[in-house]
Amino acid sequence: MKLTGDIDTLLTEDVLERYQERIELIHHKLHQKKEPFTGWVDYPANISPSLVEDILSCAAKISQQCTALVVIGIGGSYLGAKACIELLQSPFYNERYAHLQHTPKIYFAGHHLSSIYYRELFKLLQEEEVAVCVISKSGTTLEPAVVFALFKEFLQQKYGNRAKEHIYAITDRSKGALRQEADEQGYTTFVVPDDIGGRYSVLTPVGLLPIACAGIDIKAILAGAQKAYQEMQCLDLRLNECYRYSLARHLLGKKGKTIEIFEVYEGKLRYFTEWLKQLFGESGCKDGCGIFPASLQMSTDLHSMGQFLQEGRQDFFETVITVQQLAEDMMLIPSPLTGQVNTMHQLNEVIQQSVRKAHAPNGTVNLTIAVENISPETFGEMVYFFEKACAVSCYLDGVNPFDQPGVEDYKRNIKALVKEAK
Amino acid sequence: MKLTGDIDTLLTEDVLERYQERIELIHHKLHQKKEPFTGWVDYPANISPSLVEDILSCAAKISQQCTALVVIGIGGSYLGAKACIELLQSPFYNERYAHLQHTPKIYFAGHHLSSIYYRELFKLLQEEEVAVCVISKSGTTLEPAVVFALFKEFLQQKYGNRAKEHIYAITDRSKGALRQEADEQGYTTFVVPDDIGGRYSVLTPVGLLPIACAGIDIKAILAGAQKAYQEMQCLDLRLNECYRYSLARHLLGKKGKTIEIFEVYEGKLRYFTEWLKQLFGESGCKDGCGIFPASLQMSTDLHSMGQFLQEGRQDFFETVITVQQLAEDMMLIPSPLTGQVNTMHQLNEVIQQSVRKAHAPNGTVNLTIAVENISPETFGEMVYFFEKACAVSCYLDGVNPFDQPGVEDYKRNIKALVKEAK
Repeated sequence: MKLTGDIDTLLTEDVLERYQERIELIHHKLHQKKEPFTGWVDYPANISPSLVEDILSCAAKISQQCTALVVIGIGGSYLGAKACIELLQSPFYNERYAHLQHTPKIYFAGHHLSSIYYRELFKLLQEEEVAVCVISKSGTTLEPAVVFALFKEFLQQKYGNRAKEHIYAITDRSKGALRQEADEQGYTTFVVPDDIGGRYSVLTPVGLLPIACAGIDIKAILAGAQKAYQEMQCLDLRLNECYRYSLARHLLGKKGKTIEIFEVYEGKLRYFTEWLKQLFGESGCKDGCGIFPASLQMSTDLHSMGQFLQEGRQDFFETVITVQQLAEDMMLIPSPLTGQVNTMHQLNEVIQQSVRKAHAPNGTVNLTIAVENISPETFGEMVYFFEKACAVSCYLDGVNPFDQPGVEDYKRNIKALVKEAK
Repeated sequence: MKLTGDIDTLLTEDVLERYQERIELIHHKLHQKKEPFTGWVDYPANISPSLVEDILSCAAKISQQCTALVVIGIGGSYLGAKACIELLQSPFYNERYAHLQHTPKIYFAGHHLSSIYYRELFKLLQEEEVAVCVISKSGTTLEPAVVFALFKEFLQQKYGNRAKEHIYAITDRSKGALRQEADEQGYTTFVVPDDIGGRYSVLTPVGLLPIACAGIDIKAILAGAQKAYQEMQCLDLRLNECYRYSLARHLLGKKGKTIEIFEVYEGKLRYFTEWLKQLFGESGCKDGCGIFPASLQMSTDLHSMGQFLQEGRQDFFETVITVQQLAEDMMLIPSPLTGQVNTMHQLNEVIQQSVRKAHAPNGTVNLTIAVENISPETFGEMVYFFEKACAVSCYLDGVNPFDQPGVEDYKRNIKALVKEAK
């Protein structure tokens, strides 16, 4: 991970000196893991090899058993796996490649209540062998619970008494409605670690089981995260790109930049930016402050939101995620339009430079984060980089990165209102 | 279309009286169509029946000829059709229903330069009969032009001399590179009207041809737009929901609400909010001002951005688009969690009320726009409603809704930079 753009203008020698000590304090606070929900900090380094093997055998069993896996979860129980599969699998995975690769098609559910979607999905699944992976710490979050009930009925109709063999639950170690049901029914289960919150859970079974089911190499993902874990222990603000990015966000927020726009030029990173929006939005936006996280997919959105970036209010900064090398680049057809530019990836880079050049005179601040390539390793690296960057910048802002009082309020409110509804 | 929420609190008698005359002036200015790019104002009322028949025959011909249609376009040449197909077709249209319905699968292209996507798409298309619909007024916008060149080569390899019979161009009436090529090669063509800009073009051949190819009833869409055209001619600010919404946006912008969050509870409206982001972002964000348009899909994003909405900065307002009735609702499995709520759509409504209740104490402003159902008619209605609302609120802000100087700058810059690149 390499951080460029306006970072050196922001982090002058003076600033670095001023913040070095605070960064060290925050680093130690995180790594001591005394605060609740800091289990993710060294999880990739400490994950037990036998758990990884269990996940892989379970994924192999699911691939044998079914042609379609429905993953039920919302928020952190959904976005990480979705982002990973969108990044690393074919855009036509369900349409074509799942079948060719003998891995199940993956359908996400329980994160919305679109009855049209579910009706169509049930119709489609009539012709498939189906397994369900339900992910919920408590088992009582409304949307996934309601959708899981529908799928249990579906499996019951399809498989009768053997329905329970088609259900995989990722839930609390010992308590909650889903754990109780899983134990009673004998579902295969994996544990959501107690000390890791939803939005930091993609590198635990929560993300790893669905990702493994899609045929993606989870050992490589964990290796990438371990590499990031090692590199990002460096205490020197001059050298640790993760802490440099955290500090830049914090300073920009203080300067009144209230929107952070995550921009990607490789469309396969689109859901990764959705995951970023949850990570940063849920962690940092509290007590009437916090940076609003938005995302744009280029070039698509240059032809829509481009006008705002170019000539709208200057209360945002751009965080561009770029890919240095693509294993599968594409030659262009030579034409006067493309001049000396030969490949699609090169052209994407020229567009990116051009956008930066166009925005700079308006005073737009640009942070560019480059990853080496698109691979399981770099996915693991990026996840860890942004998780840590988010935690550190929240601490710099004086905000607890690991609670979400607003979301908890909403969950409570909605349950009360449902009870009142007639 | 019905507007509720905090609208009456915003539009007091006093405000209505103060703005009535200005609204009338803006109405007449729009309907006189003396300004450039106002052709969309009465287009649905005036579209020639023979053009509609030509589009339908062409769609029928494409359905006969191919199993996969690649639609190449960016910005306004892509988002409208994409939004419509996502709303009105099955979420598994390409995966399953296109084949059952004997209409071509639809793949959008040219709005991004993801080489991974195109490599996979070309592989997939080896097994299909392919037609290409290229949409570009000039023919020289970089991204679609580059992608079109690749597809021409693909068709050449697949069909040899008959390749040109597989190409459909929607372009300028008489000038530009694509018009010239189409005339020389004898492609079937449709015209992008001179007096309608990209983001207002979905109800012209630009949107209607791809939509018709997906088997959606374009006559019903136009009928819905015509209905909206009639209803929204009402000059009385007390009665015209479109003008009321325009005025509310304008007033909220003046009060420092700088982010408009479009929220949908029916996931099939997700791309419609992307279309809204282009419409409002490109029309209204100029000269260092304008409201930043964002979008959220509920419940999904309640579990990510919900925390910001609940406890972040209060510089946004929420524009919720709801659907009053669903033809295909879904019964829930009775459970203590859902109480007396019987269907998924009812539950979605309870969640929506609950969210409003939770946000209100923070002073969050809520505008709720209800459409009757999900159908081609209401799609046409919504498109016209928002196009007109956008134009009117821009005029209230003193901004020209129909130019996009920033995007034009970007297009010029990028061409210059490509020339320099080596």
